[in-house]
Amino acid sequence: MGSGVFTDKFETEEILSNTDRDGISVEAALQNIGYDGESPAKPMEDIHAYLEVHIEQGPVLEQNETNVGIVDGVFGMSWLEATIYGEADHAGPSPIHSRNDALVAAADAVTAIRRLSNRFSDDVVTTVGEFSVSPDSINVVPDEVTFSIDLRSYDDDTVARGVEHIEKELETVCEREGTEFELEELWRIPHTEFSPTVCDIVTEAATESDCSYQRIIGGAGHDANYLNDITDAALLFVPSVDGKTHNEAEFTEWEDILAGVDVFARATNQLADQN
Amino acid sequence: MGSGVFTDKFETEEILSNTDRDGISVEAALQNIGYDGESPAKPMEDIHAYLEVHIEQGPVLEQNETNVGIVDGVFGMSWLEATIYGEADHAGPSPIHSRNDALVAAADAVTAIRRLSNRFSDDVVTTVGEFSVSPDSINVVPDEVTFSIDLRSYDDDTVARGVEHIEKELETVCEREGTEFELEELWRIPHTEFSPTVCDIVTEAATESDCSYQRIIGGAGHDANYLNDITDAALLFVPSVDGKTHNEAEFTEWEDILAGVDVFARATNQLADQN
Repeated sequence: MGSGVFTDKFETEEILSNTDRDGISVEAALQNIGYDGESPAKPMEDIHAYLEVHIEQGPVLEQNETNVGIVDGVFGMSWLEATIYGEADHAGPSPIHSRNDALVAAADAVTAIRRLSNRFSDDVVTTVGEFSVSPDSINVVPDEVTFSIDLRSYDDDTVARGVEHIEKELETVCEREGTEFELEELWRIPHTEFSPTVCDIVTEAATESDCSYQRIIGGAGHDANYLNDITDAALLFVPSVDGKTHNEAEFTEWEDILAGVDVFARATNQLADQN
Repeated sequence: MGSGVFTDKFETEEILSNTDRDGISVEAALQNIGYDGESPAKPMEDIHAYLEVHIEQGPVLEQNETNVGIVDGVFGMSWLEATIYGEADHAGPSPIHSRNDALVAAADAVTAIRRLSNRFSDDVVTTVGEFSVSPDSINVVPDEVTFSIDLRSYDDDTVARGVEHIEKELETVCEREGTEFELEELWRIPHTEFSPTVCDIVTEAATESDCSYQRIIGGAGHDANYLNDITDAALLFVPSVDGKTHNEAEFTEWEDILAGVDVFARATNQLADQN
């Protein structure tokens, strides 16, 4: 949110008024922790370059026993919402052949969407994360299921083809079960390519440092994605143990943190000298 | 609930204190509609026989163009709750081969459970009705899915075999996806066989009436199931248009209602004469 406001992607007031599931606004939360300062979250002058260190949130660096990843770019993606409409029936007396079970069709779709991963392109990743069933009653055949689809690839055309593939899969599963569907694209963002100049400077810095490093493509967006639009940005990854993230097991070894900070400092010095 | 209290299956106070999703108790709801009377919901004397007319809640009578179904018995059933435990991961950077996606495994299970219907016995019906996903977030691989399984058959041994089959299917899907599961049986009830004597009297009555009729097995329990334990009970079905039930489209043609009432009245007269 901060980098989005900083780069004029979002309105300050809009972001401050956002609330979490408990109804607490961003503004109230910032005031509560003393972070609601006086200075506007806007660039004060032209920015020569932007550099960020982040955990990888994936297993690649750890598997390759590499201390630092230099991120050439980040996947493009599409977020979709699918709804499948079946017909409610009593779980006892309604024979299977007469059913139009929205959950059976949706389960079929989840399996088909998983199969699309790495299928029509090597780097396609698909995830169904949100999933809700109606009427959600133990002895009633479900008549409506809504679920999200997260589809990513570094190639924007592949994302577009992926959306078409998903629509075809939904047609197939719905024809099989006698159900109907709607598919809505919530948003699509193109892939991000970071500044080759800054990436090269980071690579030089990593070579001077005694750490191991590799170039890598990121699966998820970070602040650097937004900053990349207003300056030359680059992004460093350090390994996540077991690739874990967004849960309490998230962890990075001190050795890797130090390697990341060392490369970051060397590259920052180099960029400062340029300026 | 009423017939369960009447036949001592449930305690009166326990039932009256049950609440719905809005927190309204059965007692408050009965008072509200003026049904909270003085007489206890208990038999005042020995009951000679019990007869009930109900809609079929299924499509068999309508498909056979039959006015009345004489129910020989009702399916036994098992209600199960399964939970699948995976691991939360970021939808972007975590490669497919490293995922343990609880929803992918659960979708696989829903498909496998559907395939069990009519598979290891002709009359097995399976339904997954309740289904909830955690953390239910668009860009997080689900780490926990809980769902219900409703399994029915007229043969009690078949229900027992069905539960074993479901456990094996869960083992298979969890091994495939690297997830784990728990399976709990919420309750199991044996099949009900109504009084052959009363069923024969109803069949005689149907023969005297000018309606069409057939013997049938019911998929779902009704008040007659409880009453069958304390007296000679029988159950009549009239057709449900399109087999619809538990939704606003539930409908029975007047012709069928009249046929059902006619057979009911004739059989009741016959039973009263016996007494």
